[in-house]
Amino acid sequence: MAALQHEFEHPNKAFGWAARDSTGFLSPFNFSRRETGEKDVTLKILYCGICHTDLHLSRNDFGVSIYPLVPGYLSFLIHSIEKLKWIFLCSVSEINNQRYQLLRKSLMIMIYRHEIVGEVTEVGSKVEKFKIGDKVGVGTMVDSCRSCQSCVDNLESYCPKKIPTYGFKNVDGTTTYGGFSDTMVAHEDFVIRIPHGLPLDAAAPLLCAGITVYSPLRYFGLDKPGLHLAVVGLGGLGHLAVKFAKAFGAKVTVVSTSPHKKKEALENLGADSFVISTDQDQMQGVIGTMDGIIDTISADHPLLHLLGMLKSHGKLVLVGAVAKLELPVFPLIMGRKIVAGSSVGGLKETQEMIDFAAHHNVKADIEVIPVDYINTAMDRLHKADVKYRFVIDIGNTLKSSS
Amino acid sequence: MAALQHEFEHPNKAFGWAARDSTGFLSPFNFSRRETGEKDVTLKILYCGICHTDLHLSRNDFGVSIYPLVPGYLSFLIHSIEKLKWIFLCSVSEINNQRYQLLRKSLMIMIYRHEIVGEVTEVGSKVEKFKIGDKVGVGTMVDSCRSCQSCVDNLESYCPKKIPTYGFKNVDGTTTYGGFSDTMVAHEDFVIRIPHGLPLDAAAPLLCAGITVYSPLRYFGLDKPGLHLAVVGLGGLGHLAVKFAKAFGAKVTVVSTSPHKKKEALENLGADSFVISTDQDQMQGVIGTMDGIIDTISADHPLLHLLGMLKSHGKLVLVGAVAKLELPVFPLIMGRKIVAGSSVGGLKETQEMIDFAAHHNVKADIEVIPVDYINTAMDRLHKADVKYRFVIDIGNTLKSSS
Repeated sequence: MAALQHEFEHPNKAFGWAARDSTGFLSPFNFSRRETGEKDVTLKILYCGICHTDLHLSRNDFGVSIYPLVPGYLSFLIHSIEKLKWIFLCSVSEINNQRYQLLRKSLMIMIYRHEIVGEVTEVGSKVEKFKIGDKVGVGTMVDSCRSCQSCVDNLESYCPKKIPTYGFKNVDGTTTYGGFSDTMVAHEDFVIRIPHGLPLDAAAPLLCAGITVYSPLRYFGLDKPGLHLAVVGLGGLGHLAVKFAKAFGAKVTVVSTSPHKKKEALENLGADSFVISTDQDQMQGVIGTMDGIIDTISADHPLLHLLGMLKSHGKLVLVGAVAKLELPVFPLIMGRKIVAGSSVGGLKETQEMIDFAAHHNVKADIEVIPVDYINTAMDRLHKADVKYRFVIDIGNTLKSSS
Repeated sequence: MAALQHEFEHPNKAFGWAARDSTGFLSPFNFSRRETGEKDVTLKILYCGICHTDLHLSRNDFGVSIYPLVPGYLSFLIHSIEKLKWIFLCSVSEINNQRYQLLRKSLMIMIYRHEIVGEVTEVGSKVEKFKIGDKVGVGTMVDSCRSCQSCVDNLESYCPKKIPTYGFKNVDGTTTYGGFSDTMVAHEDFVIRIPHGLPLDAAAPLLCAGITVYSPLRYFGLDKPGLHLAVVGLGGLGHLAVKFAKAFGAKVTVVSTSPHKKKEALENLGADSFVISTDQDQMQGVIGTMDGIIDTISADHPLLHLLGMLKSHGKLVLVGAVAKLELPVFPLIMGRKIVAGSSVGGLKETQEMIDFAAHHNVKADIEVIPVDYINTAMDRLHKADVKYRFVIDIGNTLKSSS
């Protein structure tokens, strides 16, 4: 029944690969897309990046991906609703159980991916910004409330009612499906123009990984030439943080636990220096030298030495999804330092980011893969075995089963 | 020998009460003060507040107050130097062992207090800002390097070489002694003018507690009329945070674990609302409503619900001295919220704060005590049994033993 609902809730047939349970294993999946509305853009998807969040969600790393097969399911569900209230829905006045239940359900059959690039195939009668043939992208969200303070401030990513690109209830009541599919339909306000000169495959990861590091650099004033910044962790997010920070004119130090990444960081990514976070001597050499740090680590790790690297009034920005960390308070107080989190930027900033990337030749280092390599790629991503982002060649390798 | 050194290292006799060991018990103590230098101001101390930090240091709550009698002393000392490097000295390039050893030694015989108010009795030949008879104050520091970026920016409190008012090595090599004594000598740049109209006893706590809450309200932009702020904890810091926030024009919610403080918060301090942090219903009613929070709790406490109280882009500022807290990361990322620490302000801002306090009738609620009540007061402070700050009437009750 569930499969039928997905196939017929909209008039237009669509095809992709979906995960059905907490193994995260993906397989071919028929579903449907809505018709092109008057303000909608429909695109043929050409490339789609694989974000680490996909892996987290599929393996319940956040503790909020509920599967019926998990032991202790009911008590965990109640616990999670309580947590969600304070975490995901902390800006609304009551728990939106319906939304949560849908999240839970949709995780069972989910079209992942939110780093989507394609070519416009149809535009609605009132679309003003795009025409057929334009190269465009869709990032992590496809709609928002349009009226809250975050939306008014062009910060739709912080709208408590934003509609994520996959796994949530859309405004028409249907479920959103991500970019691991042949087509996509989105309101033009949530479509990004890909500038000429930016390769479409290498542009895809900018729509989530790129804006995730660009936005905090801008918001926290870490975009001024001459600053000394550190980037912690050299993966999908980290390698783009190095590139954007260099493009802003910063001196960049990469902090890693992996000595073998030094050559790569300095020679290929353009970092100015490299320190091993577990080497006391190296870390002591950078005490009090950083204006800001972009910390991309999505696992437990100590913050004391990172805070110690900051100058007074320095800023440590966490962009890696990890549930909790131990916070040493004295370094914050003695140096008026801050620990912040940051998500993706709003639509206006995302367009600004990708235009900036085209202008400064910032693009993701990618490994392009065919559709049927996806499950292997997920395993390799789990082992951090990719430089630095997998991008699926949807356009050339996704074959409809119909 | 130690006592003799303290008595004769300077030409002018001085008298106070000092702690000798980790009991923190205070008793009469003869020592000496330097002569009035050409840029110095000498004052007769009239009132001195008791800061909670005094209690922390005396009882080793920070884990850095080293006493020879503590078991496992040597290993702890080494551990602490390592910690100090990253915490207190995180802005200098090497461990200043000498300074640390002095801190350790001076804690054994220490003239506490850094909320000092008195009357000028002598000024140096090149003093420009003060004259005999002026009412003045000295806060948490008596000198700084004058050349680092923090000093250049009038943020002497974040200078890595600042000289705290007690327990540290001064520029002349002698030890600094705090305000629990008959006289004080300080460079005029580190002396604050107490405005007319501000009672001297109620002004004393402003020099540490007051500036500790005023400075983050200003620095983090929480001083705009119409903002909704929360103050967590209603003690020496908290009650002044409420008063300053109200004076800035904010709507203020007090967050406490003590229901009996509600009447006090609303009726006496002027708060707009009051919530019990352990009451789920009350806390749910304030989800996503705060622009900023001043958290004055100096003990372990959960941050999840406090972060949940913040709007997107809200700021949680920790000013209570606690070693570490558990940091939930998702609320930071999903709402681009920040957790910051903040210490006292610089001298310029301290003067601005006390002028603002006089103008807006902000003063500490105090219990004035005689000198010989001090040990009882420390015990009561440990039990939070004071509304809200003890101030010692030094001028009328300190009797020299000589």
